[in-house]
Amino acid sequence: MKMIIHIFFIISLVSSISFASVQDFCVADPKGPQSPSGYSCKNPDQVNENDFAFSGLGKAGNTSNLIKAAVTPAFAPAFAGLNGLGVSLARLDLAGGGVIPLHTHPGASEVLVVIQGTICAGFISSANKVYLKTLERGDSMVFPQGLLHFQLNSGKGPALAFVAFGSSSPGLQILPFALFANDLPSELVEATTFLSDAEVKKLKGVLGGTG
Amino acid sequence: MKMIIHIFFIISLVSSISFASVQDFCVADPKGPQSPSGYSCKNPDQVNENDFAFSGLGKAGNTSNLIKAAVTPAFAPAFAGLNGLGVSLARLDLAGGGVIPLHTHPGASEVLVVIQGTICAGFISSANKVYLKTLERGDSMVFPQGLLHFQLNSGKGPALAFVAFGSSSPGLQILPFALFANDLPSELVEATTFLSDAEVKKLKGVLGGTG
Amino acid sequence: MKMIIHIFFIISLVSSISFASVQDFCVADPKGPQSPSGYSCKNPDQVNENDFAFSGLGKAGNTSNLIKAAVTPAFAPAFAGLNGLGVSLARLDLAGGGVIPLHTHPGASEVLVVIQGTICAGFISSANKVYLKTLERGDSMVFPQGLLHFQLNSGKGPALAFVAFGSSSPGLQILPFALFANDLPSELVEATTFLSDAEVKKLKGVLGGTG
Amino acid sequence: MKMIIHIFFIISLVSSISFASVQDFCVADPKGPQSPSGYSCKNPDQVNENDFAFSGLGKAGNTSNLIKAAVTPAFAPAFAGLNGLGVSLARLDLAGGGVIPLHTHPGASEVLVVIQGTICAGFISSANKVYLKTLERGDSMVFPQGLLHFQLNSGKGPALAFVAFGSSSPGLQILPFALFANDLPSELVEATTFLSDAEVKKLKGVLGGTG
Amino acid sequence: MKMIIHIFFIISLVSSISFASVQDFCVADPKGPQSPSGYSCKNPDQVNENDFAFSGLGKAGNTSNLIKAAVTPAFAPAFAGLNGLGVSLARLDLAGGGVIPLHTHPGASEVLVVIQGTICAGFISSANKVYLKTLERGDSMVFPQGLLHFQLNSGKGPALAFVAFGSSSPGLQILPFALFANDLPSELVEATTFLSDAEVKKLKGVLGGTG
Amino acid sequence: MKMIIHIFFIISLVSSISFASVQDFCVADPKGPQSPSGYSCKNPDQVNENDFAFSGLGKAGNTSNLIKAAVTPAFAPAFAGLNGLGVSLARLDLAGGGVIPLHTHPGASEVLVVIQGTICAGFISSANKVYLKTLERGDSMVFPQGLLHFQLNSGKGPALAFVAFGSSSPGLQILPFALFANDLPSELVEATTFLSDAEVKKLKGVLGGTG
Repeated sequence: MKMIIHIFFIISLVSSISFASVQDFCVADPKGPQSPSGYSCKNPDQVNENDFAFSGLGKAGNTSNLIKAAVTPAFAPAFAGLNGLGVSLARLDLAGGGVIPLHTHPGASEVLVVIQGTICAGFISSANKVYLKTLERGDSMVFPQGLLHFQLNSGKGPALAFVAFGSSSPGLQILPFALFANDLPSELVEATTFLSDAEVKKLKGVLGGTG
Repeated sequence: MKMIIHIFFIISLVSSISFASVQDFCVADPKGPQSPSGYSCKNPDQVNENDFAFSGLGKAGNTSNLIKAAVTPAFAPAFAGLNGLGVSLARLDLAGGGVIPLHTHPGASEVLVVIQGTICAGFISSANKVYLKTLERGDSMVFPQGLLHFQLNSGKGPALAFVAFGSSSPGLQILPFALFANDLPSELVEATTFLSDAEVKKLKGVLGGTG
Repeated sequence: MKMIIHIFFIISLVSSISFASVQDFCVADPKGPQSPSGYSCKNPDQVNENDFAFSGLGKAGNTSNLIKAAVTPAFAPAFAGLNGLGVSLARLDLAGGGVIPLHTHPGASEVLVVIQGTICAGFISSANKVYLKTLERGDSMVFPQGLLHFQLNSGKGPALAFVAFGSSSPGLQILPFALFANDLPSELVEATTFLSDAEVKKLKGVLGGTG
Repeated sequence: MKMIIHIFFIISLVSSISFASVQDFCVADPKGPQSPSGYSCKNPDQVNENDFAFSGLGKAGNTSNLIKAAVTPAFAPAFAGLNGLGVSLARLDLAGGGVIPLHTHPGASEVLVVIQGTICAGFISSANKVYLKTLERGDSMVFPQGLLHFQLNSGKGPALAFVAFGSSSPGLQILPFALFANDLPSELVEATTFLSDAEVKKLKGVLGGTG
Repeated sequence: MKMIIHIFFIISLVSSISFASVQDFCVADPKGPQSPSGYSCKNPDQVNENDFAFSGLGKAGNTSNLIKAAVTPAFAPAFAGLNGLGVSLARLDLAGGGVIPLHTHPGASEVLVVIQGTICAGFISSANKVYLKTLERGDSMVFPQGLLHFQLNSGKGPALAFVAFGSSSPGLQILPFALFANDLPSELVEATTFLSDAEVKKLKGVLGGTG
Repeated sequence: MKMIIHIFFIISLVSSISFASVQDFCVADPKGPQSPSGYSCKNPDQVNENDFAFSGLGKAGNTSNLIKAAVTPAFAPAFAGLNGLGVSLARLDLAGGGVIPLHTHPGASEVLVVIQGTICAGFISSANKVYLKTLERGDSMVFPQGLLHFQLNSGKGPALAFVAFGSSSPGLQILPFALFANDLPSELVEATTFLSDAEVKKLKGVLGGTG
């Protein structure tokens, strides 16, 4: 008898307070159309806890390359649950002498926290002023949206940092790649950067650029 | 002759000032894909005045339940024309002794106006401070986004209020349902709320929770 | 002894989890400087429950005027707690034959709910299409941001409605006042509306315009 | 040998720093579903430089009409690359005596710069105050979002201006068209504007309105 | 001579391209007035690299308390450079058996990455569905804005995590504190949560609540 | 008598519909405190039509410099009325052979329209793809927020363009200045760009950098 009342109680509550179809989240469905606000939402009925978790940051990136560094992003749609929630992560691994070249994130500001090692980081403002810090374990630093910045291992051993962004799709434009790793004609690179023809062609050679 | 001139005039105007495909509104098409910004837009050619109107708030909700209260929402996509316009409504019916339990709206602030009766309402800030008011007919009160709040009939007869939200999909998380009406294991509820095992299990029984 | 432990417990919690200075709300301080995001915030220590409540909507506006209608807003800073929370209210009183003339809200969409009487309401889209509804008690309708709309008592007795906006400062531009109740030279009104000189001057006379 | 190292270097960089699927832009795909944030995004693989350029502003609009003026918009989706980027353009051509009638943009503020001739422009605030300027070549003026404004050739020869908006879909509601070029019943126009029946019917006749 | 040319060159560039007073950032000045968009900006001339760095996350919080856990925030204005940049951080220390009680962030979504140990974390949606994960070192999880969530050390040793938020002032409302650590009258707590009087009074005693 | 009725009518209207203190605009007061949303607002009583107009774009910038180009911005607070309205302008003058070096706007997308001459413009995406167009008079092109782009006079005579931004404070970071016109140590420039020491020091010499 009591149980019947309870069931009645619950059903009547459910029917009295039903806010169907709310958008608490919008798990990315990479197969659907994108919009300026992000990826399409997966059907909520097919969403489960794994959509809100991501295991890709647990492993060090491969730093056996010439910058001796690796960036491992946790962005939408790879980390599907982030879509539209205005936040994301990435992992930076810097071997001894490693460097993340000058770059910008067009879509968000970034904040970094050092987990291991010593990192020299800096950014340059619109007024061309340089803000430079040497960061030890536990130190954090913010890089305002769209401004050129870099991170460099200035310690002896390897360094590890996590960075967070105020967007699920912050973007990343790496300066030397933007200049020298595509088919932007050398004469245009030179005219718009003041770099010499020799320098541009040398770095195009190194980074795979043409033209 | 005059008519011909007029027609020419109108056509020439239409051709001289044509701002096609503007997005004045985006009536929800619940069958299309959703995005972080809301529901897909219905084809504008198929939109009519009924998409911008909603009759669901005209009837009192059924308060024959244990909270003696009912919430009737007018949100997207039920009220299709609201989609993306940053505003929505709901109707609160509270029979004598009725109460809307502690709840939050993750996606918007709320403002309430009392139409009939006396309502005791309150919210709790991040600093754990309580803001409490007894509201008579015509009084209004605002509940900031994401903060726990409640409404309770503190008068003798029934009470009626309308509430507005700064989003077409404000969401609603009702605290006792979030705690006791799902399969969140009792030991986790207890560890994360300091409630006793007996209390948690009793309320799970009442509200239909398991585990 | 137990009490001492409790005090220790509470203090240690407070010291372990202290998120000072959060911005749950920003109660308007009309004496401070304004910014594009709204009014300055009152010192949180001086905020109390009255800042989040407003009693101005309880009384019918005075409809003893030629439009037989009154609009009573509950906006920031009069309703101080709304500032920055993205929502506000207003009360519409329409005596028999009353009308809220064509107007726009530059800063927010509006949703209306009829409390008493019968209201004929409509808006005009960018495509010059008219969306027109007759609304009875409990019916609601949405008017997208920035579009011309009106409300008119189409019943026999008085009508009452509450309207909500998706901004704490939605603004209000009433068309006949914008055209005829200021010093915009008549020749400019005429050239930009196609109205006749006689009509413009007549209505300037009625509404107090000059020039 | 050196080339092999370079190729290894480039591949290892690409694999170490790969931020796939960023949303730098969302070129409008008018065939996909729209959302409150704009048009669906074209597949990035099919985007090319032509999506980011628009040639429609190069030719003067046809001013052989009764307002002796033309507005040529460069909005999404016609200028597909603008979608979601929060900016757009339009070209105003005003022959001698030409006028852009009173209008609003529900979705964005506008800033105008005069390229040729002399333009008298103005807007009206929510407080019914008029802000009026005569602008010469090179002068610019801003019209806040949603407020009624106009532009009028007050010089001797033709005038040309470009205007920019803070949205890729600002919308455009032209006052005399909204009032007189649709089927809004004359009695409603009259009741909500204070205009006379004769004036309304005359202008409905001129602009093609019915009812 | 060459130097003079260079100086001329630089000065002429500076005079030809000068974008004064840009708002790359807005370092919090806690003494100035706040607005809905955040803290006032410090005078840019007095900003230096230390405003963009924060060392408070380097030290473990004190977990010698009854929840055996500590939250150390890096929010504005303590981390002044974050103000208005839409991102912030916090450090979670959980001793063995430690728990961050159920809580919400009214102003932002959160993403967590485990640095050490094993954390069981979960959130509850508006639909009362539970999303629960056990996270090992390097695993990350997202908690959508405004939804109740918790973190709990489910491993043997201590656990450490960093969390990021999509706002510089995300706020924090801890459920048991909101319910039991203030002067919200017990009868209101009971009526709005369904908890028993005995349970409420017991927990008010534990957490310092009154009434 | 009739006049008295009119005055009564107007006063009664004003008292029945009064929406005080709306924020149609927020003219920049550069002496007040700034916030993340922009400059403080000038007292509305002291605002006049000149606050919404700007004459600084009427004169060609001085191109007698080594880049043979000039950028003349119309941003807040110089163009005070733009503050917070989400749009701004700039004028580009390019003498024969003139170039606007590679640069980004951290705070807004840009759209350009050519008024005179021929301009070769391009931008580089996060995916390092180049989008390049030669633009004739009347052609327009959009540059998405935060991405590197440039403009170059590719015609025979001088070129003139106007550009618009979706922010009243878009910011401007000019790449060669950011790299070579400040005190960022040469070794850091080299490590983070792959440029040679000789090249960096040569350009620091040219552009006035130190270190």
